[in-house]
Amino acid sequence: MNDILKIADKEFHSRLFTGTGKFSSSAVMKQALLASESELITVALKRVDVKDENDDILVHLNHPRINLLPNTSGVRNYKEAIFAAQLSREALETNWIKLEIHPDPKYLLPDPIETLKAAEELVKLGFVVMPYIHADPVLCKRLEEVGAQCVMPLGAPIGSNKGLKTQEFLEIIIDQSTVPVIVDAGIGAPSHAAYAMELGADAVLVNTAIAVSKNPVAMANAFKLAIEAGRMAYNAKLAPIKHHAEASSPLTSFLNA
Amino acid sequence: MNDILKIADKEFHSRLFTGTGKFSSSAVMKQALLASESELITVALKRVDVKDENDDILVHLNHPRINLLPNTSGVRNYKEAIFAAQLSREALETNWIKLEIHPDPKYLLPDPIETLKAAEELVKLGFVVMPYIHADPVLCKRLEEVGAQCVMPLGAPIGSNKGLKTQEFLEIIIDQSTVPVIVDAGIGAPSHAAYAMELGADAVLVNTAIAVSKNPVAMANAFKLAIEAGRMAYNAKLAPIKHHAEASSPLTSFLNA
Amino acid sequence: MNDILKIADKEFHSRLFTGTGKFSSSAVMKQALLASESELITVALKRVDVKDENDDILVHLNHPRINLLPNTSGVRNYKEAIFAAQLSREALETNWIKLEIHPDPKYLLPDPIETLKAAEELVKLGFVVMPYIHADPVLCKRLEEVGAQCVMPLGAPIGSNKGLKTQEFLEIIIDQSTVPVIVDAGIGAPSHAAYAMELGADAVLVNTAIAVSKNPVAMANAFKLAIEAGRMAYNAKLAPIKHHAEASSPLTSFLNA
Amino acid sequence: MNDILKIADKEFHSRLFTGTGKFSSSAVMKQALLASESELITVALKRVDVKDENDDILVHLNHPRINLLPNTSGVRNYKEAIFAAQLSREALETNWIKLEIHPDPKYLLPDPIETLKAAEELVKLGFVVMPYIHADPVLCKRLEEVGAQCVMPLGAPIGSNKGLKTQEFLEIIIDQSTVPVIVDAGIGAPSHAAYAMELGADAVLVNTAIAVSKNPVAMANAFKLAIEAGRMAYNAKLAPIKHHAEASSPLTSFLNA
Repeated sequence: MNDILKIADKEFHSRLFTGTGKFSSSAVMKQALLASESELITVALKRVDVKDENDDILVHLNHPRINLLPNTSGVRNYKEAIFAAQLSREALETNWIKLEIHPDPKYLLPDPIETLKAAEELVKLGFVVMPYIHADPVLCKRLEEVGAQCVMPLGAPIGSNKGLKTQEFLEIIIDQSTVPVIVDAGIGAPSHAAYAMELGADAVLVNTAIAVSKNPVAMANAFKLAIEAGRMAYNAKLAPIKHHAEASSPLTSFLNA
Repeated sequence: MNDILKIADKEFHSRLFTGTGKFSSSAVMKQALLASESELITVALKRVDVKDENDDILVHLNHPRINLLPNTSGVRNYKEAIFAAQLSREALETNWIKLEIHPDPKYLLPDPIETLKAAEELVKLGFVVMPYIHADPVLCKRLEEVGAQCVMPLGAPIGSNKGLKTQEFLEIIIDQSTVPVIVDAGIGAPSHAAYAMELGADAVLVNTAIAVSKNPVAMANAFKLAIEAGRMAYNAKLAPIKHHAEASSPLTSFLNA
Repeated sequence: MNDILKIADKEFHSRLFTGTGKFSSSAVMKQALLASESELITVALKRVDVKDENDDILVHLNHPRINLLPNTSGVRNYKEAIFAAQLSREALETNWIKLEIHPDPKYLLPDPIETLKAAEELVKLGFVVMPYIHADPVLCKRLEEVGAQCVMPLGAPIGSNKGLKTQEFLEIIIDQSTVPVIVDAGIGAPSHAAYAMELGADAVLVNTAIAVSKNPVAMANAFKLAIEAGRMAYNAKLAPIKHHAEASSPLTSFLNA
Repeated sequence: MNDILKIADKEFHSRLFTGTGKFSSSAVMKQALLASESELITVALKRVDVKDENDDILVHLNHPRINLLPNTSGVRNYKEAIFAAQLSREALETNWIKLEIHPDPKYLLPDPIETLKAAEELVKLGFVVMPYIHADPVLCKRLEEVGAQCVMPLGAPIGSNKGLKTQEFLEIIIDQSTVPVIVDAGIGAPSHAAYAMELGADAVLVNTAIAVSKNPVAMANAFKLAIEAGRMAYNAKLAPIKHHAEASSPLTSFLNA
């Protein structure tokens, strides 16, 4: 099937994006990420030693299929975000940036104002900007207008594993968006990921649910399959929801026939 | 992985059971059923001409991987169900029977009283009884006590595609059951099937959602993958749901570090 | 408003039925029950000393507005239920009986088979039978057919306070029933009770949610108001759910006008 | 009960705010608004003829209990909003303003960027600003920081009647807010309004659900009661949700006692 996702100038065969946080070891991380077949993997800039080419995380992510997506996690406003992105471009030699600005430490929800400002500026500076945001359809349109190459609305608070609590608004975002929609945060189970794809999301980002599973490699594989399943179902069109029952078999009575 | 499902004396590698209703043609049905890799396929006894070994449906289901599961759809009480089961055993040479007794034509919901009576009798007559029932945990225990080899609680009304509307009670049934629990009816999307497996169901039965899709073969494949994903996730254990956010990356501030 | 609920030969102005369990004292119970304005109050037969006319609970329930509804909680099968009902009729001088048969101590879910048998027998013996059951539409029809004067499907497991987890099936029951439908068990908040009434339930039974509140008298009042609100909304017809937004104000632009 | 809601310098006894759109006539509107006992009623500035003291809507809203809350519905950016607010202050002699900036005509969702800018400016200009916004907790904090006297997050798209689709985020907003939280938009049934109050919202705004009911006066009354019920329950504390059943009556078996 020729069902390629394109963001900026890159093509992706996998619609599962992953992250590098919370794994018990770099070795487990690497195995899980390979099992996921993910081609875009986010790494917190603050966690890598950009001056050290033998940095443990970077070494483990060195693989022909993997594209690095540095993220700005930890910054508190647009200025810090821009500074972090520039540092990242220089050190990691990529102009892709996952823009995360969430000042509050309890719920880690993104700041719409700072994110839009930073996105606008970063686009002008030549970045491919992937902004992590609340599932706010108007904000998504504005980000699109300033040149963000995709939008990454959240399903639920990061790490909560609650699934698509924003479903009502994700549907509107998907309906309106002219750039890819990637559901980020909150996806805690393969069924959530499949559901996002069935709704028409272009990709999902999953980190915690894989990293903290008892078996991260198996869980990565499970997400991979679920996302393929959800995408396949989206393309094949789901059956409509009915309010009355409908027999699978014709309703003529059995013994009177 | 050696994750076999056993019902009575049969072992199943696939946890997707399917049906034969509502397909646009027997050829499409066959392709979709093969794509599903299902090993147990239900067919309404009233739809086959049991005296004709060239019956169109039966011919299309003739495949080494496929076990036939005749169902009693159309019967209105336990007597008709027993009669139908006996007829089926003779004609199709299987003692497996999917017991469906749903007198009401609007919602097609199963009758708990007639189903229990029929199950008890059929077990005594040597049948492997797979009863389709409401997601009633007490009824499930009683069916288990009279010897039903599995229970098949519904997720939502047949053909409604609404998903696991009975989730609260499916969880209790799964918690209590000593026989396999197969979620039957209502599953309308691969995400629903994955969710059933994540809850710990042993298998699911899907028919309408595959048959009425615009692309039944792709949809069958999507269900296959989703069920594998859900089962894998169940075995690997899902991450717990959290009420506060949890960063994937450590929470030290970025630029102060 | 002349919106009377009739069960058997009795008329009720209040659609809130209550219970007597779990209150911190009989005095608090009495105050809360009066605040609820409930006219039908269930009491576990096993908790009253039927030989003692000064039994504490009975004394506290002695009020012109209150009708007692003895329940069979604690019985395990239809024979015990019939025996209990007869004992109750003799001692408490009422032929009304709330039929509860739930053998399993963990989830306290009702047994459909024993309940139907007991209901049929009790109706013949002249009882007004109010059966507590799973939200099983077929069972409800069968109870109606044997002469039960109402049906009492559960919203969620007793004492769970989870609300209308069986909503999908309650709607079918309400659609089909020719006897009053009283939602019993699981209602944990006034909003749940209002919702049940909005769906068209004839009454609700609430016990735990009132009894274990920090302020049972205020909570009883809250349920009373919510049920009136829900009933009023049902009669006034709710606005339909829309999939696009609709402005409350006309959509002509403001400053161009 | 001394449970007063204070916004800026005004005290409210009713926690139901209403609107004036979509009623079939001004007479019906007036009756319904009086039945609601609402003390704060929003009116689209674009719908009133501010130069005509005999304007039909304004005449019907002239009542000692009613405070007018002009809204900026129809404006597309912060400049238009400020202009509209100033016009409104002059004509209607109130410095209260409901700030609504929703450029998109299909879903009418509010613009976070323009709303924050307008709120900041309007506060400086001496307005009591009540901003209608997405249920975005970070945006709510920022509005609070610039001096908005309350926040008005949406439950679902305006006029959709879908209820509290943003519940997950409303809970966070309520947890964090130091100004009153008023749930605006999407509330389609009294049970939704009760639920908002049970979660701890300070008030709700309801318009469509009352105006388009078959009986707006009865529906207004139903909302009034439901909101009182929900608030009362919030103050009395709801019983916790349990995962196992809990009998209302002690679990000693009946006949063995």
